[in-house]
Amino acid sequence: MRTAIIAGQGRLPAALAAAMAEPPLVAALDGFAPEGITVDLTFRVERLVPFLRALERDGIGQVIFAGAVTRPRLDPALLDEATAGLLPRLMGALQQGDDATLRVVIELFEEFGFKVAGVDEVAPALLPGAGVLAGAMTPRDEADAARAAAIVAALGGVDVGQGAVVAQGLCLGVEALPGTDALLAQVAEIGALRPDPARGRGVFYKAAKPGQDRRIDLPTIGPDTLRAVAVAGLGGVAFEAGSVICLDLAGMRRLAGELGLFLWARG
Amino acid sequence: MRTAIIAGQGRLPAALAAAMAEPPLVAALDGFAPEGITVDLTFRVERLVPFLRALERDGIGQVIFAGAVTRPRLDPALLDEATAGLLPRLMGALQQGDDATLRVVIELFEEFGFKVAGVDEVAPALLPGAGVLAGAMTPRDEADAARAAAIVAALGGVDVGQGAVVAQGLCLGVEALPGTDALLAQVAEIGALRPDPARGRGVFYKAAKPGQDRRIDLPTIGPDTLRAVAVAGLGGVAFEAGSVICLDLAGMRRLAGELGLFLWARG
Repeated sequence: MRTAIIAGQGRLPAALAAAMAEPPLVAALDGFAPEGITVDLTFRVERLVPFLRALERDGIGQVIFAGAVTRPRLDPALLDEATAGLLPRLMGALQQGDDATLRVVIELFEEFGFKVAGVDEVAPALLPGAGVLAGAMTPRDEADAARAAAIVAALGGVDVGQGAVVAQGLCLGVEALPGTDALLAQVAEIGALRPDPARGRGVFYKAAKPGQDRRIDLPTIGPDTLRAVAVAGLGGVAFEAGSVICLDLAGMRRLAGELGLFLWARG
Repeated sequence: MRTAIIAGQGRLPAALAAAMAEPPLVAALDGFAPEGITVDLTFRVERLVPFLRALERDGIGQVIFAGAVTRPRLDPALLDEATAGLLPRLMGALQQGDDATLRVVIELFEEFGFKVAGVDEVAPALLPGAGVLAGAMTPRDEADAARAAAIVAALGGVDVGQGAVVAQGLCLGVEALPGTDALLAQVAEIGALRPDPARGRGVFYKAAKPGQDRRIDLPTIGPDTLRAVAVAGLGGVAFEAGSVICLDLAGMRRLAGELGLFLWARG
């Protein structure tokens, strides 16, 4: 039974394919091509049903979602009849937010007979378990990570974000729609409000939402995250052990050492 | 019994004094002078006890805190003996975050015999009750305000912020240490991620933290907030009725009309 990666943008599809035991088929949403991997098949939401039937014909039994997608604009002229029948469900879900949309997309794939797998099933090495992966935390850093974890849990409860920055107990920023890069860029420019770095540089923390369906949209960090954390003047990165995808973990550990950052999978 | 405003930066101390039945004494923290009002007395945290005794000598029985203060740096050389004795308590509170600091400050004033009043007691006109103050909301705006209120309540539960921006159900940003101006500036630059404004421009929502001590740090909005909301491309401002201070409400209503924004005290 062959697996297909349903790919969005970024490096995760390539990292996932490299970590899988057998080479997958790579299908990408039109306009959201992944980096560093050849796409076998491009599809559009307006023609979802023909796409699902094509996967079936190709012998695909399992799919895995990987990569970033923003809400695609739909062109009614492109709709086939079968997909048009699904539109009310898709549009209703789109209006309820990202989580609802993803739940409906998973349901549709399952209704067409595909198993929807999670990263932990096909490439568990991408999800580091508890441990200090680089550098060392002070007690202040550990307290900041604990506070950030409480903040991210509260935010996740209202389906907002998966990340927060805390320094000396103060929340310097929280991840919303603009994402990690925007959050860290804002922290980099915080200026005089930032508490004295000599007493604790602060932590960027990342975690899955509480109760999140682990087959879709797990938080992802990589070398670029570490570079942005260094530019933001923080002391390191902590994340929820087993729930955050690390792109190029070996490279991240090396880079964290070079940048003087800690990297901590918090259990 | 005379009232003193313990003032920080911004326009709130002047607006508060103007709305009070009897003219207050105005005391300002050194380095945080308010706008548009004459300061009668300047004090430093290092000499808090002599300052409290001076208020007592002036016949002050009641104080009210108004205006913004960032954590002042303390100069040990300036400490008098009585204030030095309070330092462990003050420093401990400072390390636990803003709310803890403000609680200890209130306690200290009370221990010296002052009643600490809230804005609702001395100038209730500054806290509008439920009603549409300018413009009109669509059902989409009302749904966005409801979602933003849930987000701000969750954030307040972990002592983060008092504001959030939601458009078409998506959280575009959340207020943390950098404050309202930084949040709205970030939303203004959100670019391609912003959902199509034709279907709902989005709402900036502001509320007190759940269980907040209403004698200190109530959220404040004013004409500048409306201008920033317009620059951010949002449809209007909603806030928790009875819990948010409006600086120059008449001016805000007029300006909201000019800018095509709604202004809604949500009950």
